[in-house]
Amino acid sequence: MASGEKTLTVVALGGNAILKPGQEGTARQQIENVNETMRQIGKMVLSDTYKIVVSHGNGPQVGNLMLQNEIAKEEVPSHPLDVCGAESQGFIGYMLSQSLDNVFNQNGRGDIPVATVLTQTLIDEDDPAFEDPSKPVGPFYTEEAAERLREEKDYDMIEDAGRGYRRVVPSPEPLAIVEKEPIRQLLAAHTVVIAAGGGGIPVVREGDKLLGREAVIDKDLASEQLAEDVGAKVLLILTDVESVYLNYNEPDQKPIDRMTVDEANDYIEQGHFARGSMKPKVEAGIKFVESGGKKAVITSLDKVFEALDGETGTTITK
Amino acid sequence: MASGEKTLTVVALGGNAILKPGQEGTARQQIENVNETMRQIGKMVLSDTYKIVVSHGNGPQVGNLMLQNEIAKEEVPSHPLDVCGAESQGFIGYMLSQSLDNVFNQNGRGDIPVATVLTQTLIDEDDPAFEDPSKPVGPFYTEEAAERLREEKDYDMIEDAGRGYRRVVPSPEPLAIVEKEPIRQLLAAHTVVIAAGGGGIPVVREGDKLLGREAVIDKDLASEQLAEDVGAKVLLILTDVESVYLNYNEPDQKPIDRMTVDEANDYIEQGHFARGSMKPKVEAGIKFVESGGKKAVITSLDKVFEALDGETGTTITK
Repeated sequence: MASGEKTLTVVALGGNAILKPGQEGTARQQIENVNETMRQIGKMVLSDTYKIVVSHGNGPQVGNLMLQNEIAKEEVPSHPLDVCGAESQGFIGYMLSQSLDNVFNQNGRGDIPVATVLTQTLIDEDDPAFEDPSKPVGPFYTEEAAERLREEKDYDMIEDAGRGYRRVVPSPEPLAIVEKEPIRQLLAAHTVVIAAGGGGIPVVREGDKLLGREAVIDKDLASEQLAEDVGAKVLLILTDVESVYLNYNEPDQKPIDRMTVDEANDYIEQGHFARGSMKPKVEAGIKFVESGGKKAVITSLDKVFEALDGETGTTITK
Repeated sequence: MASGEKTLTVVALGGNAILKPGQEGTARQQIENVNETMRQIGKMVLSDTYKIVVSHGNGPQVGNLMLQNEIAKEEVPSHPLDVCGAESQGFIGYMLSQSLDNVFNQNGRGDIPVATVLTQTLIDEDDPAFEDPSKPVGPFYTEEAAERLREEKDYDMIEDAGRGYRRVVPSPEPLAIVEKEPIRQLLAAHTVVIAAGGGGIPVVREGDKLLGREAVIDKDLASEQLAEDVGAKVLLILTDVESVYLNYNEPDQKPIDRMTVDEANDYIEQGHFARGSMKPKVEAGIKFVESGGKKAVITSLDKVFEALDGETGTTITK
């Protein structure tokens, strides 16, 4: 099948795709989860209908790296958050690449190339998020330790009810994927690409230099930016529920099959979607179709094909 | 200048390019070193004479990750060596990519794309190295801790005179770069690629599956494999000395300007080059020109251009 006929799709994996709630987080567990995920994602490629870029979160993995850094800090110089993010892209990209290689091999299609591209995401130094750090990252601390980090490292710390204190960092808007050109080149040559892991490593442009920043970019918004930057037709956001719901978790919850941008904006205004959870996914979907994307689909891993066909899940169109 | 005229070159960075002896290993120090390195490497690209792939070691970085894993193991599940290697590729690839982006931008050539490709290197499960693990990795342990690791984890441990006990892992031969096809695609599209970090993540093929192994592939031999796999004309191996020497560090030491494969093999047989240091570099050079490469050049970072012109450094030809 000619590549021109394939639908370029950015697939944003949910957290469950790599680490399930309650799991301890050994590499083995994560690899098993990834294998399950990639059997399904691989089918999209093997169907010869989709050309895909896979993006993913990194919350638990970067949290573990930060905890290791904290515990070992007397012996090993601690890394800043941007470096931990880069390390998590290496770890998760390795699992996803290898797992997808294996799915293709097991289906006699070992000829399909797969590549993880380390990704930096451009943000604006003047993003208002820097005035209001709100994204908790890394380990929990005692009140005394939190106070010390405030003084010594100028960290912003908040109390997380009952569980202790945590560092909060800004969550700025993604403006561009720094590696968009190489990613485009790979897609043009029929390679399946893994990119923008954890929302990408946040970098600002200072004069003629890129510099890393300690921040976290929402992975669904970064996936949307990636989809724009590579000219994708579809943005597929995977999560742990089959659809987006009105009145979610209430007796009268109701799945949304389709919504236009206007309807989606109305629902957001009415407060239907949880901040930091479903809301950024719907916002990413809106931004994508407004920027020229054909449709955004939000669903769960097991319903991917039905949802892409419009039989379940939630589809956002202009 | 048409790309056909550029000389495809794999540049294998030495350890000093990222972390200098005696440095503690903060991210900031490493970024400063990398910036210095990349100003020079960037010139190769800006000269419009070379198309390059950059590879690099990861010894100190993966050592620090393993030490963090060990210290934090009660709280965070420890990662196997292949995962630590993947993490180090993310970290180092991030520094190298960003630094090279900045060099290009500062020279008005922000249009040159740069990409770090996470790299797996295929090894043979039956490689004799698995019978004789010899490469020390990670932290030093007491005799008691070493004994415990032997029993609990089946690690091979050796005594490192005076400094304690260390784990040793196999150092098998690289057979192929798993991501060679995407790397080729990027090079064809004029992207500068960073790949095969730390020799690549060692993977074996078991039936129709790739699986990670706890081993370390020599980064110069992996760089040679990469050079073969992408069809490079030149393999440039950077180290901390200007040339390869006969009778190195003896009163009558003598730099070698050029050597043929036969001469190089003779010198190896005569024991001129140190195991784990200059020997694998010369061996990589020999293998490269025997496999059809035009020349291998071994020199220091500051002599790159003179050495490529044959004015200093050591050139190996068939």
